[in-house]
Amino acid sequence: MVTVNENYLKLQAGYLFPEIGRRKREFAAKKPDAGIISLGIGDVTQPLAPAVIEAMHRAVDEMADKKTFHGYDDGGVGYEFLRQAIKENDYTARGVDIETDEIFVSDGAKTDIANMQEIFGLDNIVAVTDPVYPVYVDTNVMAGRTGPAAGRGTYGKIIYMPCTAENDFVPEPPSQDVDLIYLCFPNNPTGAVATVGELKKWVDYARGHKAVILFDAAYEAYISDADIPHSIYEIKGAEEVAVEFRSFSKTAGFTGVRCAFAVVPRRLKAYTKDGGAVEVNPLWRRRHCTKFNGVSYISQRGAEAVYSAEGKRQIRGTIDFYMNNAKLIRKALGSFGYSAYGGVNAPYIWLRTPDGVDSWEFFDLLLTKAHVVGTPGAGFGPAGEGYLRLTAFGGTDDIKEALQRIKAVS
Amino acid sequence: MVTVNENYLKLQAGYLFPEIGRRKREFAAKKPDAGIISLGIGDVTQPLAPAVIEAMHRAVDEMADKKTFHGYDDGGVGYEFLRQAIKENDYTARGVDIETDEIFVSDGAKTDIANMQEIFGLDNIVAVTDPVYPVYVDTNVMAGRTGPAAGRGTYGKIIYMPCTAENDFVPEPPSQDVDLIYLCFPNNPTGAVATVGELKKWVDYARGHKAVILFDAAYEAYISDADIPHSIYEIKGAEEVAVEFRSFSKTAGFTGVRCAFAVVPRRLKAYTKDGGAVEVNPLWRRRHCTKFNGVSYISQRGAEAVYSAEGKRQIRGTIDFYMNNAKLIRKALGSFGYSAYGGVNAPYIWLRTPDGVDSWEFFDLLLTKAHVVGTPGAGFGPAGEGYLRLTAFGGTDDIKEALQRIKAVS
Repeated sequence: MVTVNENYLKLQAGYLFPEIGRRKREFAAKKPDAGIISLGIGDVTQPLAPAVIEAMHRAVDEMADKKTFHGYDDGGVGYEFLRQAIKENDYTARGVDIETDEIFVSDGAKTDIANMQEIFGLDNIVAVTDPVYPVYVDTNVMAGRTGPAAGRGTYGKIIYMPCTAENDFVPEPPSQDVDLIYLCFPNNPTGAVATVGELKKWVDYARGHKAVILFDAAYEAYISDADIPHSIYEIKGAEEVAVEFRSFSKTAGFTGVRCAFAVVPRRLKAYTKDGGAVEVNPLWRRRHCTKFNGVSYISQRGAEAVYSAEGKRQIRGTIDFYMNNAKLIRKALGSFGYSAYGGVNAPYIWLRTPDGVDSWEFFDLLLTKAHVVGTPGAGFGPAGEGYLRLTAFGGTDDIKEALQRIKAVS
Repeated sequence: MVTVNENYLKLQAGYLFPEIGRRKREFAAKKPDAGIISLGIGDVTQPLAPAVIEAMHRAVDEMADKKTFHGYDDGGVGYEFLRQAIKENDYTARGVDIETDEIFVSDGAKTDIANMQEIFGLDNIVAVTDPVYPVYVDTNVMAGRTGPAAGRGTYGKIIYMPCTAENDFVPEPPSQDVDLIYLCFPNNPTGAVATVGELKKWVDYARGHKAVILFDAAYEAYISDADIPHSIYEIKGAEEVAVEFRSFSKTAGFTGVRCAFAVVPRRLKAYTKDGGAVEVNPLWRRRHCTKFNGVSYISQRGAEAVYSAEGKRQIRGTIDFYMNNAKLIRKALGSFGYSAYGGVNAPYIWLRTPDGVDSWEFFDLLLTKAHVVGTPGAGFGPAGEGYLRLTAFGGTDDIKEALQRIKAVS
């Protein structure tokens, strides 16, 4: 008799976005001419950079000719041309020494983050921030590293580290021993960033406790403060304790193109139960090459173009466009008397609900009175209660209109 | 202290292709002007169909305009336009009733086959054919469903089902209970196909034993015999016991484009340890949507074009080209006195080595005397000993030259 992986049965329903959709539809049915504006969207809206478009057209043409046709990306770890561009632009240029055999090109940062836990033991204690991107938690539930659901979207055995206005949304390392630590800066959903000093505490903790940090840097391109690190490897010693995840999705609008990468340094070690050190890079290589066959050649050529002089200028223009939206939102909300965080180094604004109103109540208020959709913070974890996430993706006119409407009901 | 998944330490080195490469390089260094021809390649060599190229250019252009830009493939399961084309052309047209919500578009059949085991329990007994595509085995080693390495590329606890000339390379269902059964027809490496009657035995076994068949149909487009099923769902009742894997890689030359799909029928059930039936389709949907963010829009539009009238005609031309190569190889080898199998419904020819010579010895003979590279059958499992795999991918002139050289040393 074939059995299921019963860990899957512990998973709570993916509640947040379906519930938002349900409430939105219900309201739209009642008020069809409300002209609902969504500031809840977590996807890019601007078209790809012309340099990327040109590179992809060229790559498509190469696939039409036997002499320039590309089959399997040999080994599936990404073409050398792309890994070299990543190394030079994302690491060497910031004084970080990462080699191309430490870079693994993939179809998405979500895929990589979801899969990375697999090469670690099931006995590891997992620590996540609260609020949190649900993928970090759900994939550990599926693997069996957690207890059953424990209410408010949490699971047993996982260590949740609250991020609130009181700690500037950057938690201190825990007092207990944890083994696998998920950090995301710039953060989704809070928009917070971590300074060199804050990240150093985490790197020191991981070195002291022989822990591994899984560092999600998908939003690094949105950092505007010059002294905020873009890579965890800007912290000395991080290459011994951290994996880093990057993506072209938010950097260059690749959510529909699919290209990302993970960095697994050669010096990173994990341990057998009897304490023997094991290099993590070859384990990930084995996983990656056994279960994956590489990213589309066309997407890889598109990603390479992101690093051309033209490409850089063009994607900077798009990021500036989104960050101008973020600035508008943050400034307006402040002038209406709200406390709003993020939006400076990330496309996310984390809005404190007024008067102790809870996340869903405030969501309903904005929906039904201002016809604006946000994302209730409680949906990202218990410490997200009392917050609402707004995003800077979308058209500037829509955002201005939404802000006017929020003003009217504030 | 962070621990590794110690199951990974059981894995034997990916020996086969690196060893082939080593021997080839060593010989080429000694004889630089040997003009080695590879008939070992498992990758397509012909360019993409013009209809696919046109569709991908159009899709790239859509990504350049805000009004037609595509971000995330909502839900990540594939656009409706592609799942509809798959349903109609691959299933409805063959009298099989599969709905679009049973189809999950992915970046590769290898990815899907590697990941599918994850939703099943670790206590399941796995059965594979021998010889076998190593991914079926390695992914179960990684998950912990096997014992340690047991020699000749095998692992403890796995049930190996020998496929030899004696059983026409299609094994009977085992006498013992097994739970997860990997079958691949048309087969890589043997080129064998299974008849309706042969597959029916497997479906009956799975129904009787509450087992699940993971059916790899990546080479179905190469079937030329009209009475050979293309889908396991052509067998009545299979939708209750089988998952099917398909790919555009070998069908339409997409090894560098990346698009495939898995079919997980709604009627497929697995069980909790206490015998409760669980629908597999929602488990896979949860896995797929949590750990994956969809296939490139450009690749999906390319895949859709495979089903256009033009696209069908063009990819048929390419498959005919490869299968003409296969025919040449098979016919020539027969005329030289070899026993050769496959090559009729698959791009693989499974050659019996002469005079009881072992796989690697024959490999070395062909390399050093004929300057032709094949793939030693023993690399696919113990029952592959005494065979060599040749493939039909490559140019016809090279293949003719290789055959002349093989004749000269036979």
